[in-house]
Amino acid sequence: MAFNKITTDLLDQIKIIIGAPNVFTDEESLNTYSHDETEDLKYYPEVVVKPTDAAAISALLKLCNEHHIPVTPRGGGTGLSGAALPVYGGVLLSMEKFKAIIEIDTENLQATVEPGVITEDFINAVGEHGLLYPVDPSSKGSCFIGGNVAHGSGGPRVVKYGTIREYILNLEVVLPTGEIIWTGANTLKYASGYNLTQMMIGSEGTLAVVTKIVTKLVPKPQQSVLMLASFGENEKACAAVSAIFRAGIVPSALEFMERKGVEWVIKFDDIKFDLKDDVNAFLLIEFDGDDMDSIFKDCEKVNLVLEQFECSEVLFADTAQQKEDLWRMRRTMAESVKSNSVYKEEDTVVPRAALPKLINGIKEIGSRYGFESVCYGHAGDGNLHINIIKAGMSDEDWKNKLKDGIVEIFELTSALGGTISGEHGIGLVQKEFMPIKYSQINLNLMRGIKGVFDPNGILNPGKIF
Amino acid sequence: MAFNKITTDLLDQIKIIIGAPNVFTDEESLNTYSHDETEDLKYYPEVVVKPTDAAAISALLKLCNEHHIPVTPRGGGTGLSGAALPVYGGVLLSMEKFKAIIEIDTENLQATVEPGVITEDFINAVGEHGLLYPVDPSSKGSCFIGGNVAHGSGGPRVVKYGTIREYILNLEVVLPTGEIIWTGANTLKYASGYNLTQMMIGSEGTLAVVTKIVTKLVPKPQQSVLMLASFGENEKACAAVSAIFRAGIVPSALEFMERKGVEWVIKFDDIKFDLKDDVNAFLLIEFDGDDMDSIFKDCEKVNLVLEQFECSEVLFADTAQQKEDLWRMRRTMAESVKSNSVYKEEDTVVPRAALPKLINGIKEIGSRYGFESVCYGHAGDGNLHINIIKAGMSDEDWKNKLKDGIVEIFELTSALGGTISGEHGIGLVQKEFMPIKYSQINLNLMRGIKGVFDPNGILNPGKIF
Repeated sequence: MAFNKITTDLLDQIKIIIGAPNVFTDEESLNTYSHDETEDLKYYPEVVVKPTDAAAISALLKLCNEHHIPVTPRGGGTGLSGAALPVYGGVLLSMEKFKAIIEIDTENLQATVEPGVITEDFINAVGEHGLLYPVDPSSKGSCFIGGNVAHGSGGPRVVKYGTIREYILNLEVVLPTGEIIWTGANTLKYASGYNLTQMMIGSEGTLAVVTKIVTKLVPKPQQSVLMLASFGENEKACAAVSAIFRAGIVPSALEFMERKGVEWVIKFDDIKFDLKDDVNAFLLIEFDGDDMDSIFKDCEKVNLVLEQFECSEVLFADTAQQKEDLWRMRRTMAESVKSNSVYKEEDTVVPRAALPKLINGIKEIGSRYGFESVCYGHAGDGNLHINIIKAGMSDEDWKNKLKDGIVEIFELTSALGGTISGEHGIGLVQKEFMPIKYSQINLNLMRGIKGVFDPNGILNPGKIF
Repeated sequence: MAFNKITTDLLDQIKIIIGAPNVFTDEESLNTYSHDETEDLKYYPEVVVKPTDAAAISALLKLCNEHHIPVTPRGGGTGLSGAALPVYGGVLLSMEKFKAIIEIDTENLQATVEPGVITEDFINAVGEHGLLYPVDPSSKGSCFIGGNVAHGSGGPRVVKYGTIREYILNLEVVLPTGEIIWTGANTLKYASGYNLTQMMIGSEGTLAVVTKIVTKLVPKPQQSVLMLASFGENEKACAAVSAIFRAGIVPSALEFMERKGVEWVIKFDDIKFDLKDDVNAFLLIEFDGDDMDSIFKDCEKVNLVLEQFECSEVLFADTAQQKEDLWRMRRTMAESVKSNSVYKEEDTVVPRAALPKLINGIKEIGSRYGFESVCYGHAGDGNLHINIIKAGMSDEDWKNKLKDGIVEIFELTSALGGTISGEHGIGLVQKEFMPIKYSQINLNLMRGIKGVFDPNGILNPGKIF
């Protein structure tokens, strides 16, 4: 792609549009915004801008579109696929000043928020009104709701409540050509032409810049129970997952954790946890609702299923603190693994009954290529995060041979009916793997759609395809 | 649009592709496929084809694309917006021979079906495995699951289970240019580039022809309770709807019915029902689940809410027959109204707390234009179907002035944050109203997407925009 550089004259115009105090070209700023949470990748923007309203973004995009300057939108910078990396330089458009929770509409169980609101802040704000926004990725304490929209984010509660796709009703967006539109309507149902709202979700900031978000909310369940089930084998724990649903049980969360992940969390996070020698895998199972009797009935039913899969122990988290500790264990797992070793993260998802085949396959591929792996994730959705650990692999093999191993993992995922990302997105680092699952016809349709929204290809270039 | 007519030579080629016994040009066939359930509209195709596999559709579309022949896909023919009407003639592509339920995957709670399967047949088939496919439009006994995909269909259970959008995982489609692709993966989560599966849903057969459908299923609840609540005023019944959710209650169905609708069902369908003089509106409220105690607790909670809105009576349907009778009353309402009078159907949807303003506004607009209306629908989703009755309106006013009244209804809907169709689609008859809600920029984006999939515009031309 042929882009232009930002000249002094253009920079002056950007300062007029955005306001000089919100335009940064100092080394520290360029460095801060050169990376997200994706491995150790760095790409430097030419300028970082932090606009405060949609009109400024509109003017900025018009200018950049006219002059063929790349613009990379960025949320909380917690992405794992490099979607926020300004790989062609240009303008880094940080949404961090879009911080308003504009309205929590308790009559309609809806809210209107700006994309720079931290997901957990939003969850807490609606929680104070007795409402639930159930999209809570592990990074909820620092990711932005706008980034969640861009990646079609999930989190542990998808298994009962669905992904963010089911909670976004309407979006105000600025097109790369500068027009500001609402994509749909503030309604729970929509059959009024192509669903542009759904088109935006998961488009990783390549089609438009989201400036307002209307979400659906649901009544917040008053009660929950959290259980931790221990297993001797990964395969048995994974096999129990689909059996739980087959028994007619729908938990509000169903997470898998491998022993090694728990070991590293204990080291990293100083969590007190009695890790028994014969335990190699865990399922973290949550039920929520308003009726404790009904929740206990579900717990009894799930216990009967777990027994069939050689579950050695079930712990019940009784107090809020115990629940929080167990959830913290799960949530800090990625960070813990990262703190211990050079690693790569993959985000496979398969039909859930294929999980045992997937995890066995990953270990077998690892043993052939010489890498270790720590697997955990949203097993109830068939979504397994794989942390690939360098371990004894030589620097050269890590650099040159690992890719073949990853290709094999995705070929397996695809053969099992799955896909190469469940919730982390494609961004920069996964795009080379897209042809494993999707034909050139599919990719060309995506490119065509991109061209409709962004004829000059200025918005977040180099991502997805 | 400039299309060509089907020459004798082209017809011969179509016969070779489809197989002569499945190609129809007789008057009766052309007449049968000239209309759907949309008012009294008729448009005659030049030929009706009933292919049996995707390869034949691929060859057909290649031929028609090359020769600029319009192709209109058709499901069960139950549409209310004219999306299946062959307004430019050409080929009417009936999907009625795609009748296979290919797999019910009880391990993964998924199914693969062909688009010509009748929705109710599919619901019953998965029900035998203890599974629920909760998308059940009123026309479920005759509509096709492919048509439901095309229209983003809903039905009464959306309020708890979501629309068809949340149940379609993956689609095999034939593009207008003849390529056959899968749009996504058989997974509950998907963050692998633009979501082409979601793009297809609600696109009304204008982007591609669906030939296989992979659906999500959920465990079938074992118990349900159905309640019929009576109100003296429409407004009170409508106001109770949002109050129910604000009280933290999520029913599995929450339907509104106006008195007049019930009167006409009683006439049309010979249903025994004691319609009291002082009752003018009803809410039909269902709870489902596995735990009867928990369901009864919800019933008690909802009763407390209903009391606040001058609900005069609550009937509980105890037996399967009583439940079926009440549901039949709701489901046959459109047909009953249609049997009694010339009518038009609109499909408004608003944020649910706006329902009282919507229904009062509709009545006020009707009184100014001289039309009566019967309103009913999926109130829990804010989705109100409006049957506009000719009543005392002169033929001339019905023909010339009614449209202004409908424009006012949609302007009101839009002002309340709603949109002009919740589940019936835009098709032919609603497209003139799209600019009330959507800017030319939105419509141009839709046209652009259409051009990516269908460069010659042969597939279902004249619909949506």
